[in-house]
Amino acid sequence: MPYEFTVQRRVEFSDTDMAGIMHYANFFRFMETAEHGFYRSLGFSVVDPKNQPQVGWPRVHAECDYRKPLRFEDLVEIHLLVLGKTSKTLSFQFRFRKLDGASAEEVARGALTIVCVAHAPNGSMKAVTIPPWIASRIEVAPAELLAST
Amino acid sequence: MPYEFTVQRRVEFSDTDMAGIMHYANFFRFMETAEHGFYRSLGFSVVDPKNQPQVGWPRVHAECDYRKPLRFEDLVEIHLLVLGKTSKTLSFQFRFRKLDGASAEEVARGALTIVCVAHAPNGSMKAVTIPPWIASRIEVAPAELLAST
Amino acid sequence: MPYEFTVQRRVEFSDTDMAGIMHYANFFRFMETAEHGFYRSLGFSVVDPKNQPQVGWPRVHAECDYRKPLRFEDLVEIHLLVLGKTSKTLSFQFRFRKLDGASAEEVARGALTIVCVAHAPNGSMKAVTIPPWIASRIEVAPAELLAST
Amino acid sequence: MPYEFTVQRRVEFSDTDMAGIMHYANFFRFMETAEHGFYRSLGFSVVDPKNQPQVGWPRVHAECDYRKPLRFEDLVEIHLLVLGKTSKTLSFQFRFRKLDGASAEEVARGALTIVCVAHAPNGSMKAVTIPPWIASRIEVAPAELLAST
Repeated sequence: MPYEFTVQRRVEFSDTDMAGIMHYANFFRFMETAEHGFYRSLGFSVVDPKNQPQVGWPRVHAECDYRKPLRFEDLVEIHLLVLGKTSKTLSFQFRFRKLDGASAEEVARGALTIVCVAHAPNGSMKAVTIPPWIASRIEVAPAELLAST
Repeated sequence: MPYEFTVQRRVEFSDTDMAGIMHYANFFRFMETAEHGFYRSLGFSVVDPKNQPQVGWPRVHAECDYRKPLRFEDLVEIHLLVLGKTSKTLSFQFRFRKLDGASAEEVARGALTIVCVAHAPNGSMKAVTIPPWIASRIEVAPAELLAST
Repeated sequence: MPYEFTVQRRVEFSDTDMAGIMHYANFFRFMETAEHGFYRSLGFSVVDPKNQPQVGWPRVHAECDYRKPLRFEDLVEIHLLVLGKTSKTLSFQFRFRKLDGASAEEVARGALTIVCVAHAPNGSMKAVTIPPWIASRIEVAPAELLAST
Repeated sequence: MPYEFTVQRRVEFSDTDMAGIMHYANFFRFMETAEHGFYRSLGFSVVDPKNQPQVGWPRVHAECDYRKPLRFEDLVEIHLLVLGKTSKTLSFQFRFRKLDGASAEEVARGALTIVCVAHAPNGSMKAVTIPPWIASRIEVAPAELLAST
């Protein structure tokens, strides 16, 4: 299904801080792990030189709501859902679930909006239309899936 | 003025990613740098054992809007403004300005909401009233300051 | 075999720097991933409250030799070998192999020496004998394995 | 003096781990901060497009000996000394001193060896002679300085 992807991660020692929990900035690293895994599952990579013209995917918005902490060695599932799609942007929702035996409790929920850009020779970036071979493989998740809590 | 604080950082090599710009998750590390510097400027620390009872400050919400990239060795000013204050929470706005000689262009704007918690012996966290010696030193920034773009 | 452990990791976007390769400090995070996985494979955790008295494992030495770079989405195998063991310390070797189909090329080799400590109530650390339930489960790798290039 | 450089850093919350101390991999990020500041003090940058041909500086060896921990908000001085210089490589020593009022206690000592490389169009790297405008500005520290404990 080209509107969702799930990956698991175990919280590492270097992900924690002195409060004994995963540092809040690292949830954004984990979101990106799911995002890039989603692309790989569709057969492309954000840095695939075979894709011409080369495009980049800078973030224009990122957010996260934290409900419960994650701790060292917790096993967490990051569930990506495609929230939105325009000609030049994609947005994703990420649900973090702590896995504990058969149970899976949502501990955080995040979102990213990314924009497709071309890099000018002088290093500047300009928003461009998402290449069709990418856009055609991604669809917005069904409303009932996005609405579930 | 107990409603704002400013700190400067230079973007380091380890802050960048293969896109040649500061990795988006690192803006959240920089926000926290400003937040903790704000506390120090008020005479306390988030981990001051002299403050009894001990409280923690987990994040319940974090967000950032990215307008322009930051690159290696860019000098950036992070300007914290107190957005809101309740009996148990504080929220901050962060404006990232890239400094270049006399000019300072806003490249990103973020926000954090944190909650004051007490740690139970079993490791769980419970929201508690912000200790008065902290709450009394922090005030919400004037509306006209928060409204400026 | 209680003298080695192997784990795989895929290099993530946030592991890279603007040189387009995995930042050199992140090899040390990957070593720790293998180290903690080794402990879990032996049935304990570095932060297991059931183990009394509580001990910590600060690093006293870390090093890495880099032969070839790792890039985004490279699949890497980290192979831990127990290099040495004294009453209070453990040392490990780590071989990083980039996996590419059937081939596995060593791209870096690192080492860590850690010391078992007890935490005094004032926060200071003191080297102590490794608890027997841990020491008895770990043995030094055979010399011929460590000597292989 | 073109054989040493000193920079100060305050340990940040995101530099710590659940052991309550600066994560050991972050000492390598701090070394690089001193290294790049040293270059800036000499008037060049590792990513200066004005320097042609473009060269890169991957690490071939990194190490650190840890004596005492660094904690949140500790002020640390990183003192770089040029350990060695060949036609294609540079090596540096780094002394970490925790500053506490008038005292400065060495808590860690590290070293880096870097090699000057040119990037081939296919992405591979080849060791090359350090450009003269860089090599001429860097000299090895006096032996008595390097020998001091």
